[in-house]
Amino acid sequence: MPVSPNELSQLRQQIDDIDNQLVELLAKRAKVTARVGKYKSKVGLPIYVPEREAELIAKRRKEAEQLNVSPVLVEDLLRRIMRESYHTQNVDYLCTNPNIQKIVVIGGAGALGRVFVDMFKRSGYPVQLLEKDDWENADSILRDAGLVLVAVPIKLTESVISKLTNLPQDCVLVDITSTKQKPLAAMMAAHKGPVLGLHPMFGPDVASMVKQVVVVCHGRDGEQYEWLLQQIRIWGGILQQTTAKEHDDAMVFIQVMRHFCSFVFGSHLSGENPDLQQLISLSSPIYRLELAMVGRLFAQDPVLYADIIFDNKDSVAILTEFSAKFNQALALVESNNKGEFVKQFLNIGSWFGDYAKQCLVDSRKLLLKADDDRSLSEDC
Amino acid sequence: MPVSPNELSQLRQQIDDIDNQLVELLAKRAKVTARVGKYKSKVGLPIYVPEREAELIAKRRKEAEQLNVSPVLVEDLLRRIMRESYHTQNVDYLCTNPNIQKIVVIGGAGALGRVFVDMFKRSGYPVQLLEKDDWENADSILRDAGLVLVAVPIKLTESVISKLTNLPQDCVLVDITSTKQKPLAAMMAAHKGPVLGLHPMFGPDVASMVKQVVVVCHGRDGEQYEWLLQQIRIWGGILQQTTAKEHDDAMVFIQVMRHFCSFVFGSHLSGENPDLQQLISLSSPIYRLELAMVGRLFAQDPVLYADIIFDNKDSVAILTEFSAKFNQALALVESNNKGEFVKQFLNIGSWFGDYAKQCLVDSRKLLLKADDDRSLSEDC
Repeated sequence: MPVSPNELSQLRQQIDDIDNQLVELLAKRAKVTARVGKYKSKVGLPIYVPEREAELIAKRRKEAEQLNVSPVLVEDLLRRIMRESYHTQNVDYLCTNPNIQKIVVIGGAGALGRVFVDMFKRSGYPVQLLEKDDWENADSILRDAGLVLVAVPIKLTESVISKLTNLPQDCVLVDITSTKQKPLAAMMAAHKGPVLGLHPMFGPDVASMVKQVVVVCHGRDGEQYEWLLQQIRIWGGILQQTTAKEHDDAMVFIQVMRHFCSFVFGSHLSGENPDLQQLISLSSPIYRLELAMVGRLFAQDPVLYADIIFDNKDSVAILTEFSAKFNQALALVESNNKGEFVKQFLNIGSWFGDYAKQCLVDSRKLLLKADDDRSLSEDC
Repeated sequence: MPVSPNELSQLRQQIDDIDNQLVELLAKRAKVTARVGKYKSKVGLPIYVPEREAELIAKRRKEAEQLNVSPVLVEDLLRRIMRESYHTQNVDYLCTNPNIQKIVVIGGAGALGRVFVDMFKRSGYPVQLLEKDDWENADSILRDAGLVLVAVPIKLTESVISKLTNLPQDCVLVDITSTKQKPLAAMMAAHKGPVLGLHPMFGPDVASMVKQVVVVCHGRDGEQYEWLLQQIRIWGGILQQTTAKEHDDAMVFIQVMRHFCSFVFGSHLSGENPDLQQLISLSSPIYRLELAMVGRLFAQDPVLYADIIFDNKDSVAILTEFSAKFNQALALVESNNKGEFVKQFLNIGSWFGDYAKQCLVDSRKLLLKADDDRSLSEDC
């Protein structure tokens, strides 16, 4: 049927009305999920229940198909709505160890320490901080501690741990440093009771612990800190167990390599000094995203990244190997040996296997989401 | 008020009802936007109207605040819904040059060529393809062409263009190669009429041209291809004008550097052969994303990337400089010179300026969106 300019404004009015109803529906939904959140925190059910989430999405996808609406659209919207409700539901949490006398967080005023202090408090634990000016009172602060969490910068971790030789026998000693072998060995040496190494794989800016990975490296007397692991599960965290050595080996790739490469990329870019605004305006979404991944490093704490890169004993070996690989590939370009480049490309592709395809699919989805945001596309 | 297990299932039922209403609302909305799409294509209004989008979002954000719903949530949802409607609205487009005899797309059966063929057809243009087996009939195919679009692989571009010496005087000659100086020079030499260089900054897998960047390098007789630029605007594309030299200089950074580094990163990883599944399970969202950016390269065409890297005359110089920067930074790690690392880090941060902070903010937003998707977090 034909449509006139007048009808266009009528159609737009209809869209506005529908969107208005959408906002009202969200307000209604938030009220219901707030009540669910209260119930869960009271009985200690985790905020994030993968099965319920999957079931809920499957049902709505089916309905979408029947109504000729894209099921992918519906799933994307529901996931976004659920994220909001995870992050706002967490008023209070069930306390899995209500009999504990006290939790002491050493470095609890630091960025990541504060996240744990906050979560402990919202779970009803008595929490005390031990900051660098408090060491003269350390004995009295630590005397009744049922859990001591070490949350100080990497370079201080071992020296701080070495002072903790006088903890109550049944006190759980935990650290959250981003390396695990040395801190764990230091804790085992300093303390005879239960010992646990954690590495939260997120920064201090997380909105909640829902769906965040926490690496778990067991030390000693695991049954005595099971309550803490359960507590983290209730907060929504995903626990991944590994040995300290496996953890540290993996972190050379996960942290050292990428941060170092981003550093060099930034160093190279600033040295060449291209017009950054022009680069951005001429970019594809994927490059804008990659540039943002580099740029974001330099908005953060240089000392933290220096510590991560310099304090891993395998850094020099692995970076030297990377440099060799870089120069081998460069030699292919210099000698215009495209054939060998393509051959190696295919071999690497085989090594990645199905994961490469999965990455392509997932990154496309993510790029579409990035495109939704004009600010990302235009300014970053 | 207290809640019992029975009440939990009642609350969940309420959530299901609300989500069901949400799906119905989306179905209603899609019907209205389909009519808007029809109107727009008839009168030639662009699908994507930034001002209307901004106005619509601002109104709903305000309502959200009044109803105590997160305005960020509402904006995210609306943008996602609008993306869907942009990509499904585009049934047909207004034709900005209905008097043109014929458009010939050379390489129109290739991946990116097909996107343009499709868009031209949906805008009502008579389109003919010229593939590699058609050259003996080239004269008759090209005889009445009002526009010839060259969409062949980089390495063939110049030789194909060199054959186009016999086009009608007023025929517009355009290429969409990812380098611009050489193809543009070749077109200016082969053809005396209007000439235009384009570089679409997107892959063949885009769902539509809405919000996609197309780089424009003017050649000759601009007023004669203004209709084509207007056509691309109607498709939703964002035009960015630059010179061919500026374009190619920027692409060394935008394409060569990142693709080459991803190649080396993959080469290094497959050489070291860590347990990929374990790396992924121990990763932070940001690392999973960075790994996905590397992995996705190897699911694509090796020859395309070989061409992009090898065929840019500045590649060797810029990669050699990058290698030097890498080794300088490595020397800092070897000599444990954290002080100098931190100093350089801060200098690079100053070079990035406010952009670094913007990247941090935007990438956080994007990481949250990535987290919504469990499949990305778990499998990729």
